[in-house]
Parts: sequence; C-alpha cells; structure tokens
Amino acid sequence: MTRKLSSLELLERVKVGDQAAIARLISRAEGGKLEDRAALAGVYKIAGRAHIIGVTGVPGSGKSTLVARLAASLRAGGRRIGVVAIDPSSPYSGGSILGDRVRMNAVATDPGIYIRSMASHGATGGMARATLDAVDILDVAGFGTVIVETVGVGQDEVEIARASHTTVVVSAPGLGDEIQAIKAGILEIADIHVVSKCDRGDANRTLVDLKQMLMLGLSHEKPEWTTPVIGTSSISGAGFDELVAAIEKHRVIAFETERGRKRRLAIADFRLRKTAEDLLLARFNASLGQLGRSLPTRLAERQTDPYSLASELLRTLPLQDDSPGAHHERDARPKIA
Amino acid sequence: MTRKLSSLELLERVKVGDQAAIARLISRAEGGKLEDRAALAGVYKIAGRAHIIGVTGVPGSGKSTLVARLAASLRAGGRRIGVVAIDPSSPYSGGSILGDRVRMNAVATDPGIYIRSMASHGATGGMARATLDAVDILDVAGFGTVIVETVGVGQDEVEIARASHTTVVVSAPGLGDEIQAIKAGILEIADIHVVSKCDRGDANRTLVDLKQMLMLGLSHEKPEWTTPVIGTSSISGAGFDELVAAIEKHRVIAFETERGRKRRLAIADFRLRKTAEDLLLARFNASLGQLGRSLPTRLAERQTDPYSLASELLRTLPLQDDSPGAHHERDARPKIA
Repeated sequence: MTRKLSSLELLERVKVGDQAAIARLISRAEGGKLEDRAALAGVYKIAGRAHIIGVTGVPGSGKSTLVARLAASLRAGGRRIGVVAIDPSSPYSGGSILGDRVRMNAVATDPGIYIRSMASHGATGGMARATLDAVDILDVAGFGTVIVETVGVGQDEVEIARASHTTVVVSAPGLGDEIQAIKAGILEIADIHVVSKCDRGDANRTLVDLKQMLMLGLSHEKPEWTTPVIGTSSISGAGFDELVAAIEKHRVIAFETERGRKRRLAIADFRLRKTAEDLLLARFNASLGQLGRSLPTRLAERQTDPYSLASELLRTLPLQDDSPGAHHERDARPKIA
Repeated sequence: MTRKLSSLELLERVKVGDQAAIARLISRAEGGKLEDRAALAGVYKIAGRAHIIGVTGVPGSGKSTLVARLAASLRAGGRRIGVVAIDPSSPYSGGSILGDRVRMNAVATDPGIYIRSMASHGATGGMARATLDAVDILDVAGFGTVIVETVGVGQDEVEIARASHTTVVVSAPGLGDEIQAIKAGILEIADIHVVSKCDRGDANRTLVDLKQMLMLGLSHEKPEWTTPVIGTSSISGAGFDELVAAIEKHRVIAFETERGRKRRLAIADFRLRKTAEDLLLARFNASLGQLGRSLPTRLAERQTDPYSLASELLRTLPLQDDSPGAHHERDARPKIA
C-alpha cells in the first residue's frame, strides 16, 4: 500500500475487517480533516450494532489491566472485542504514555481483540468526537462489543465513558484521600460498580463502603436495574464471570427497553453537540491560525481586553464557511511557549 | 446588600478589597453571562501587577496542602496572597469536593490570604476563561501574588497551570505506575519542581530520579534559568524557604527579561483563543438549547450522521449575533440521562 488510500477506500476495507485499514481510518478520525468527513459520516450510518461499554475509574484503580482481562473474558463468549483507550498523555510532547505497555500480552496476540490507544492530546471537544468515531469504525469492522476506557478525571473523559450503553466504574482499595474525592464524582454514573484488586486484604472495606453508599441512594434507582457492586482480581481472575454476566444482563436493558432507548437518544444528543462544537472550533482555529502577533501583543499590554478582542475576532472570521477545500480543519492552536 | 449589585458595582468594591464583592464577582465570571462581560473587561484592563504562580501535580501529590503552606510562607514576606483552586468536582452533581476541607485552618483565618475553589464542572473552555478572570479579580483586589492550583490531568487543567508567570510541578514519592505515567506528561512544563512528602523515607529516590531526568534534558534548558528540584515536607515545613526563594528568583525572570515578555505574549494568545472559543461555544449552546428532540432522534436512528447534522446546525444558527440582551450566554448542554 504505497499509494495513500482515500478514507472512503479505507472504509471499504474496514467493512471486511482489515486491521491495517481500521488503524488508518481511526487515525483519520483523530486528524479531523474535512476531506475525511464523508467516510466518517458513512461509518456512522452503517454502525449501531455493537454493544458499547464505557469503563472509567480514578488513576491507580487498575482500569487498564481490568479492561484487558475483561476483553479476554468477553472474547471467551465468542464475540470479537474492540477496545478504545483514551490515554492521558502529555499535552505537549503528544506522546502516548500508557499505551500498550500495560496490556496483557495474551490479549494483544488474539486477532479477535483489537486495542487502540488514543491520546487525549488535542482539542477536548475533538477527543470526544474522534473517540465515538473510532467506536463506530470498530463496530462497522464487526466487533460486537466495544469497550471505551477513560481515566475518570476531566469532564470530557467522564462524559465519553457515559456515552455508552453500559457504564462500568472501577474503584480500588488503598487509594489516598485526594483520589477518593475525585472518585466520588464518578460513582454516580455507574451502571455497574467494580472494586478491583480484591486480592488485597483491604478490598472488602471498599466493597462494603460502596454497597452502603448505594443503599443510601436506593430511592434514585430505576426499577429495571439495580446497580451491582462486583469485586474482581486481575491477578486471580476472580469476579470476571460475575462481571461478564452483569454486562450481558445490562445489554438487554440497553437494547430492549424504553430506558435504553432514552439513553441512546441522550447519547445522540451528546454526539451531535460534540461534533458541532468540534467543527465550529476547528473552523475558528483554522481561521485564527492566520493571524499574526499584533492582537496578542495588544492584549498582553492591556490596551484591550479578551472579551472585546474575542468579539471582534468572531465578527470578522468566516465561521459559516463550510465548503470542502476551503481549508483543512485542524486544531491550529499554538501551545504556550 | 439585599439589592442585586451589578457587576460594575461589584468591581468598584473589589478595587478596595471587599472580600464579599470578590467572591460575588468571581461567581459572575463563572456564570459567563453577557451582562457581566463589561465588568470583566474592565477588570482585565487594570490587572497585570500580580505575580501568577501555577501549581499542578498528579492526584495524590499533596498539592492542596503544599499550596496552603506555600501561601502562608509567601504571606510571611508581607505580600497578600490569592489562591484559585480548580476542583475536580463531579461533572454531574456539580458539587465541589476537595474544597476548603483540606486547607489548613491557620491559612483560612488570615485575611491577607484569600482562597477560592472553582469547580471544573461546566464547559472546559469556559473553565480556563473563568479561572483567568478570577486571577485578575484577585490582582485588582490587591493580592500581589496569585496561586492557581490545578490537578495535572486533562489538557485544560495543565494549560491553565502553564498560563502563569511561574509554573510549579509537584511530584511525590510512592505513587503507582499509572500515576507516574500521567506525571511524565506534566514534568516538562515546570519552571520549578517540587517533591512533596519529603518526610517519607522513599522521597530521596524520587528527588534523585527527577534530577537525573533533568540532567538528560539539559540541552533544552534556557541559559537564564536552570529548573530547580526542591524537596518539601508540608508536615515539618522543610524546603519551603528554598521554594519561596526559587519563586522570587523566577519572578524576576518573568517580569524583567525577554523570556518573560515572550511568555506573557503566549499567555495573551492562549487567553484570547480560550475567551473566543468560550464565547463561540456559549452562542452555539444558547442557540442550540432551543431545539427539540427531533434531531437527536434522527441521529439515534442513523437516518443521518453527526457531521451532516452538525454542518446543517451551524449553517442555520445565528452564531454571529453578539448583541447584548439577545440571549444569555450560558452553557446549556443537557447531560446524558
């Protein structure tokens, strides 16, 4: 493949499960160029079959290892499993840090499991859009279950995990106070709670605490679903059968109930907004990228204020221009020196 | 104060250091309404005297306690100290979690130190804009040093810490692999490194590792400044004199050198872009908020795709309308149900 394939050509190959084409089309989704939009639109229209599982948890909760084990457990049921992992990489060097380093080798060599790391580097709106595009690409490539893994810090990361049919929140014993406080913010989005590292002696306390917390909030529970709390050990494999069973049970809720239908509508709403925001910011940044140093200088010297200058910019930039070829829609934000 | 003061009236009170007015004007900045923009523009034009210190670090690095101690140490030099802490609160319940709970009581009772927690809840672009507005409000209120504290996860959080004159990155011994990996992404933005919790036995290893890493990267160092690595203990107070001295030394770089001038220009560029993005997204969300359920339904049923629908939306929404009173510019995004 020396010639650069168009994204529409890549889509044809994705449909028959070509792994190289999957990787390249996801990269095009990350790039966010105008020329690739038709292919991604095409992907969306034929996607919609896969069960999408969002997995999130605080740093140190053992998410990555749990996701690798979960992928293997779900795979054992015969389904092909895709994983999209949002990687909290450096916002400056752009390197993916967690990457595949922490993935289990056994998982990486099974062609029925596809793992893709995506850097959270770049516009945050763009990250949500590109991640959901990547999920659909795996869906179209025939992966019946797609896991989206994000770190549970940052609104976009949490919202992406929630923009799934089934959201799993991972807790772990023995984390510090600051981590526990962050964790409190994501507990409420769980359809299924997992306490990982249950091989540790202090895990039982975390399990009990979580269950008590859920008891207190029982009045908020919907009748169709009682949020389970499942202890797992990625070392011994304990709890993964129970987790897979809970996911399969929730899959039915997601696809066959009014509750599931409403959630898919909310996901569509989120996706439309994120895509529109991304297109809008891309246009803005593409237009703004051509400006020189004079405006920041006026601002740095306090001759004007950010609001007046921003309003002035927005009045003069061609934000309504959406013609293909007019410009490449890329995030052109320069970083702070 | 039963009558609701206008933001311009609040600004007059902020100028004479009225703490209630400071709190209320920062809340107006968070709200992001069109009617408060003139006052915030006015704040910007008369701000610019304070030394802004960004402090960031991974969850569990002991940032909050360090910032409280640092504020007290800087305060001992006679300057009034403002602190703006970005709080990784729940994106859904909107509650501030870390808040003042972890702040030292001694600090909280000194009127020369003002601490404000701001939730990271809401639009991320809006968070950067509102945070920088809050910094300027404290500047105008006469705080000679303003510390901005963010968790070092998430691009916006890191960029906010970097949009300061002096950036301090906090590391700590004994954190897990996943945390260490996230940490790697923020090390490069430091003007000053701190290793907290140096009362611990394993802290020396963290100090040595950091110094070795910096040695390897020495060729990237600018001649004006060699990034120091300082060990501190928030329990014993060790290292805080050294940290204050390093901050004072860097303050000179920030205000009196070409390097500092370039950085202020980059900060102005960042601020202009963030403000413009925020205004643009606010207009978009205000316009979009009035749409019904029909578009998400079409999307959920895959009758159309997010790109076509988003383009359609952007063509029809009045994004250029900036007249006061046309609508309130608030983030009207509904959350996923």
